[in-house]
Amino acid sequence: MARKKTEGESSGGPAASKSASVKLTSEDRKTLGSLFGLADGVVKVAQRRKAPHIDIPSRSLSNVRFSTSRKIIEMGNNTNRRELFNLSQAKSYMQTLLVGSGCKQLIEQGKTTSIRGMYYLLKHTIDGTKEETFDDQADCDPIIEDLEVTLDALREELHLYASNRGNIIGDLTINDSGTELNCSRVGRNGYSIPSIVEPNLLKLVKHNCKFILHVEKDTVFTRFVEDQFYLKHKCLVTHGSGQPPRGVRRMLYRLHHELGLPVFCLLDNDPWGYYIYSVMKQGSINLAYESKRMAIPGAKFIGLRSKDFSRCGLNKSVTIKLNDTDKKRARQIAQYPWFEKKKEWQNEIRLMLENDFKLEVESLISKDISYVTEEYVPQRLKDKDFLD
Amino acid sequence: MARKKTEGESSGGPAASKSASVKLTSEDRKTLGSLFGLADGVVKVAQRRKAPHIDIPSRSLSNVRFSTSRKIIEMGNNTNRRELFNLSQAKSYMQTLLVGSGCKQLIEQGKTTSIRGMYYLLKHTIDGTKEETFDDQADCDPIIEDLEVTLDALREELHLYASNRGNIIGDLTINDSGTELNCSRVGRNGYSIPSIVEPNLLKLVKHNCKFILHVEKDTVFTRFVEDQFYLKHKCLVTHGSGQPPRGVRRMLYRLHHELGLPVFCLLDNDPWGYYIYSVMKQGSINLAYESKRMAIPGAKFIGLRSKDFSRCGLNKSVTIKLNDTDKKRARQIAQYPWFEKKKEWQNEIRLMLENDFKLEVESLISKDISYVTEEYVPQRLKDKDFLD
Repeated sequence: MARKKTEGESSGGPAASKSASVKLTSEDRKTLGSLFGLADGVVKVAQRRKAPHIDIPSRSLSNVRFSTSRKIIEMGNNTNRRELFNLSQAKSYMQTLLVGSGCKQLIEQGKTTSIRGMYYLLKHTIDGTKEETFDDQADCDPIIEDLEVTLDALREELHLYASNRGNIIGDLTINDSGTELNCSRVGRNGYSIPSIVEPNLLKLVKHNCKFILHVEKDTVFTRFVEDQFYLKHKCLVTHGSGQPPRGVRRMLYRLHHELGLPVFCLLDNDPWGYYIYSVMKQGSINLAYESKRMAIPGAKFIGLRSKDFSRCGLNKSVTIKLNDTDKKRARQIAQYPWFEKKKEWQNEIRLMLENDFKLEVESLISKDISYVTEEYVPQRLKDKDFLD
Repeated sequence: MARKKTEGESSGGPAASKSASVKLTSEDRKTLGSLFGLADGVVKVAQRRKAPHIDIPSRSLSNVRFSTSRKIIEMGNNTNRRELFNLSQAKSYMQTLLVGSGCKQLIEQGKTTSIRGMYYLLKHTIDGTKEETFDDQADCDPIIEDLEVTLDALREELHLYASNRGNIIGDLTINDSGTELNCSRVGRNGYSIPSIVEPNLLKLVKHNCKFILHVEKDTVFTRFVEDQFYLKHKCLVTHGSGQPPRGVRRMLYRLHHELGLPVFCLLDNDPWGYYIYSVMKQGSINLAYESKRMAIPGAKFIGLRSKDFSRCGLNKSVTIKLNDTDKKRARQIAQYPWFEKKKEWQNEIRLMLENDFKLEVESLISKDISYVTEEYVPQRLKDKDFLD
């Protein structure tokens, strides 16, 4: 059983790997180096007869700040010490090293797995005890995040993947692990964005696009595809089935930063739409350490807007009344440091609260089936009418 | 506004369409013919000074039966009459015609939309009243289903789409609305299966495959892709992110029936896995009218099995205790007519209840990262060890 083998191995460096046939990329060697550094630290400390510990950057809210210069959410420098010889920390200390050994195994074998797969890979009853390594996946996920921040490695670099949701269509040629393809020639749904889109697996070859339109839902995406928006406007259209998963965010980040393509987000006029925009633009609060490789401070919010009810002449029927949670979330979001000082966003959120209703992108269909693709978005682009 | 225009139109037949430039397919003309038939029926009855009505096939459980010869769930012949001049039926009568007019508009314009889009397209306050056409989407969805059964038209033929979840990878060449592509050359996620895969939009061109392996989750799919299972075993691998959406079911149906490819389902050893299998194989109870174009009675269940805990030598740690809902669902499923008479299925479900735990496909990773692709599935295929 692979798990047991790995656990029994000494940490003899990458050269000692049993999967000698696997060709490691330079990224893999770097990540593996960090993992061995972690393990070697334990050995060294033990040899000096000291108590082993790991210093893990704190992921609490108090250690997160908004960088006004870089315009992303960043982590501060606070760390928490996790000690082996401390009753309240021993288990999480061991779990941290166990996750490290699981990631080492994945990288050495040239394989990836989901965070659920990692949980199953490592879950077992510790010999001679009734103690489980992890009681359930909720015990394992935060340890994975701890390891990410400790090693300064993205989850993808640890060979762990998230959901595969999200698609992209338009005249972009990529090379996906050896296969060259054009994202406008792979069917009506376009290219299905993998969870891991790091440069070693996915190369951006060439494109003929002026911007990226990111829409919230797959159903809206289908409207834009059917109306050939990506051809008419020489652009890429993406969706992430709600809050875009890591693969989509990282892909948009690369397209924006490597190819210089502006990103416009067409999201609902509701707190959830604002929140999606906030995460795409500035990063998320609880995964602040990802911001620097996922956040797109230059992204623009192209709609829907609180003023669209009157501006587009919508019928009251297509509005959805705000509930208490909506109102509470809206007030919270208005106080985010990156929205707090923007008059336009304050007006936007205030107007939604005054309206006392939210508007989904789909509601524009009440004007005409293709109103959103043929009038709404083209007009906003022409007028440069977006929120920053 | 497009909606208003359509409502004001007389039902003058397809020739009267305002979107003369749209080329209708023969399927579209057939569906449009049914829609006009529905509308003409109203006019004729009214001209004879009779009360208009529609007879809608009943979708209640009492009108559903399992055909032992065709091995699918079918609808019986019961219908419910819906009358305009009946206070309790007038609203749903009008809603039925309204959805019909919405579908007519979509087909004539050569466009499709989601069921949420349809709801927004039709939602308005009726002139001179405070009455809404639909209060929310839950009012509109069953009317769409009514129209499907009444016209004997799949939702896709009414130009309505569902979710785009689900992917397929392997050596299959298709033509998706004019673009020819091979499903093994479109990236690591394979081809993203659209919601509408009817033959007018998606043509099966050629293939070099022996069977189809359908897996439950995208994360398991990624394991099979990474291990190149589809190349090594000359097969197609599909997933549907849980219960496969209509597009995936219809795609599998076509691949099975048009290309003669066997379908093997790798699902979890739990009531939800059984239920997914049941729907894929026999159709769903509440949408029984779709069975004849979606159900695959020849599909096989390739695992996980209740006996895998001992057969594969799994650790107790990776089992998940059954809760009360699981047990209740398991007993219900055991009584489905299509499982009731199969000794193997009765044993399978009884053993799961005796085990008092369920097993996810991912739990096999505790044996080895690639155990599922390199040992489990190949052995089951070799031994022809599946449930029918």
